Amino acid sequence: MTRRDVVTRSAWRIGVAGLGTVGSALVDLIGSRPGFSPTGSACLVTGVSARSRSAPRAASLAGIPWFDDPVSLARSPDNDLFVELIGGSDGAAKAAVEAALRIGKPVVTANKALIATHGLSLAAIAEETGAALLFEAAVMGGTPAVKLLREALVGDEIDAVAGILNGTCNYILTEMEATGRGFSEVLAEAQALGYAEADPTMDVGGFDAAHKITILAALAFDCAPTLAAAEIEGVGSIETLDIRLAKDLGYRIKLVASALRSPAGVTLRVHPALVPLDHPLARVDGVLNALFIQGRTIGRIFIQGPGAGGGATASAVAADISDVMTGARRPVFQKVAGALAAIQPVSSVDATGRAYVRLLVRDQPGVIASISETLAEAGVSIDSFLQKPSQGAAGVPIVLTTHEAREATIARAVKAMAALPTLIAPPRVIRIALFQ
Amino acid sequence: MTRRDVVTRSAWRIGVAGLGTVGSALVDLIGSRPGFSPTGSACLVTGVSARSRSAPRAASLAGIPWFDDPVSLARSPDNDLFVELIGGSDGAAKAAVEAALRIGKPVVTANKALIATHGLSLAAIAEETGAALLFEAAVMGGTPAVKLLREALVGDEIDAVAGILNGTCNYILTEMEATGRGFSEVLAEAQALGYAEADPTMDVGGFDAAHKITILAALAFDCAPTLAAAEIEGVGSIETLDIRLAKDLGYRIKLVASALRSPAGVTLRVHPALVPLDHPLARVDGVLNALFIQGRTIGRIFIQGPGAGGGATASAVAADISDVMTGARRPVFQKVAGALAAIQPVSSVDATGRAYVRLLVRDQPGVIASISETLAEAGVSIDSFLQKPSQGAAGVPIVLTTHEAREATIARAVKAMAALPTLIAPPRVIRIALFQ
Repeated sequence: MTRRDVVTRSAWRIGVAGLGTVGSALVDLIGSRPGFSPTGSACLVTGVSARSRSAPRAASLAGIPWFDDPVSLARSPDNDLFVELIGGSDGAAKAAVEAALRIGKPVVTANKALIATHGLSLAAIAEETGAALLFEAAVMGGTPAVKLLREALVGDEIDAVAGILNGTCNYILTEMEATGRGFSEVLAEAQALGYAEADPTMDVGGFDAAHKITILAALAFDCAPTLAAAEIEGVGSIETLDIRLAKDLGYRIKLVASALRSPAGVTLRVHPALVPLDHPLARVDGVLNALFIQGRTIGRIFIQGPGAGGGATASAVAADISDVMTGARRPVFQKVAGALAAIQPVSSVDATGRAYVRLLVRDQPGVIASISETLAEAGVSIDSFLQKPSQGAAGVPIVLTTHEAREATIARAVKAMAALPTLIAPPRVIRIALFQ
Repeated sequence: MTRRDVVTRSAWRIGVAGLGTVGSALVDLIGSRPGFSPTGSACLVTGVSARSRSAPRAASLAGIPWFDDPVSLARSPDNDLFVELIGGSDGAAKAAVEAALRIGKPVVTANKALIATHGLSLAAIAEETGAALLFEAAVMGGTPAVKLLREALVGDEIDAVAGILNGTCNYILTEMEATGRGFSEVLAEAQALGYAEADPTMDVGGFDAAHKITILAALAFDCAPTLAAAEIEGVGSIETLDIRLAKDLGYRIKLVASALRSPAGVTLRVHPALVPLDHPLARVDGVLNALFIQGRTIGRIFIQGPGAGGGATASAVAADISDVMTGARRPVFQKVAGALAAIQPVSSVDATGRAYVRLLVRDQPGVIASISETLAEAGVSIDSFLQKPSQGAAGVPIVLTTHEAREATIARAVKAMAALPTLIAPPRVIRIALFQ
């Protein structure tokens, strides 16, 4: 049977590897009988695989053949499309996706680590065998971001994408601000609520957001996904004091993932940033995700929605399945794999920016003078300056924001301030987002 | 191999009918030589048509064959895809689109009136001949809305879509608030700036937004586009006094287009509405457009961006051209034309809602008592009440907001108030948006 025959005649048979919250929700959504038929053709789940067959699951697997090995499922002639929801950049996920693509079977995945790390080599296999490889659910869960950049905005040149791409970090920062509780306490609560993993490193370390912005940057700038180009800083060192002081200055602290194109290359990074309170990104609370796309002709597009959740993410997987069913053929990224170049990173040291600097100093005369002199000598000018009442032995908190300067210059000024004898603790520096 | 062979084999040849700002921008974007190649294949413009050949235009038409008759262009074997940017629900636009579809040629259009009015019959022709019919640019200009509902959210049930879909009205309301000037004066300025047409009826009367929400409702609820189901009220009667009073009460007045699904059917309407100041829609200023989509599983997705503009709209047309080039095959709407039912309208009279009511009364004792008694008798309870200082002979402005009630009940209460002898002018009623 040719591909066209399948499109027009019979049901698409789907194999699903990975049965966590997303996989279970997907099996629920599609079902094991022809029903879901987004393009006019029906589809149904004809095989599943997961680590443990006996784990409790929301979805009923009754009547669906079980595969212990996801690679066997990927190769099985009893399904026409393989969905990978195992996760992880390597191991079983990569092996199974490669196995499916190698026999020309279309693959839909929600695996951001896999695509950010091995997207180029997978695209090469997919394009060699003519198999589709789609990954809408890898970024922003149920909120379309991949489709926007990959399909809807191909008529424009994209200059920048920036957003809040990790719901766990955003939940933690939102809760820290709302309750005044510290990072560890809120993280523990997020873990109890299921918003954070037992090992939270991927989320709070910024790596999850880095995978996502790497994928978006590849689509926005017609490059290969290049995770190595990303500078990554997580939210683990953010204190409630900084959240409070930032608010006094008119900002909210968010974990911002951004990719900016300049003639020199692409600046790709994830870091906490002060976002002006009246900016839409500052108002993205809890587990929501949001993204700005800046196009040369279209100007700015903003999209906000659920960044995670089993049902929402399964809905994105279902959209990709539906796209495969249409028979659409286009490169996996914006150009064929052979024509994709790696992202040329521009170090943020060469970028210009503004910074929030928080200092804890001894309560003695001349302190402010020495700080402002140090900054002036480094060539950094002060935009605002806030001294809070003395906290006794703990010292006096001073917070300042700089005008725009080279980030390297700001770093030099901070290093010089750190050497001042009046400082009780190392300076705390957080970038200020340069959004309009 | 002749040059013609090369062109026909390697590039998609595009015919463009209508060379206003969007058409000119599209010819600029694609060009007359193979260049723009979003899917790996190139495309180029091989024929154009417009009312006047000699009109001044931004794009160079040098070397592109000219067609006096758009139907001839639509039928010409020298193009593989027909782009309709003529506008209007009937006449040349409809004739040309039908001509192309009848010979199985794919059509991309930005024509909201055409799709809202004749979408079902055009879909039937397209599906009979196997031609694609795409219309991303018909709604929200360069901001993807059609693709979101038609492709990205097929895995979820959509309960509601609501947004600001007409940039002209939004510009006028924004300017009225910012400057305190009246509707007519701001409209005249908008016309001078090119934000409003010489005949502004389609925009300010709410008809343009009605076309757009009709199309979105069809895609959201798997129905045929049913313009007749829409209740339409424009912005022409909004006064700066109402904008000011609404703000005092914590609202901004916006022209909101909405489609809500309930078990009884679909409520489809366009009307001015009070939107809470802290709601994202209240912050959509000037010519921007914005849309909320409420899905059963995904929750709420919000997208904001340019709703018009030649370049931005041409970018949406280019995205559709690119989609045609992928060979994707799916129904024009969410089901094949033969399976599409018309939208069953639920009259807003049967809906419940809240209202802003502004009264101008004589400055005499007992007025407030008579108003509140009238409301109480009708069964409508008051949420807030604001009496402004007397304006002498012009009377005393009183403004109140109601709690949620059946809209028919509110209408009855307003009718009873209108009969009060103390009223100087008929009550002015504006709905309050029921967004959370």
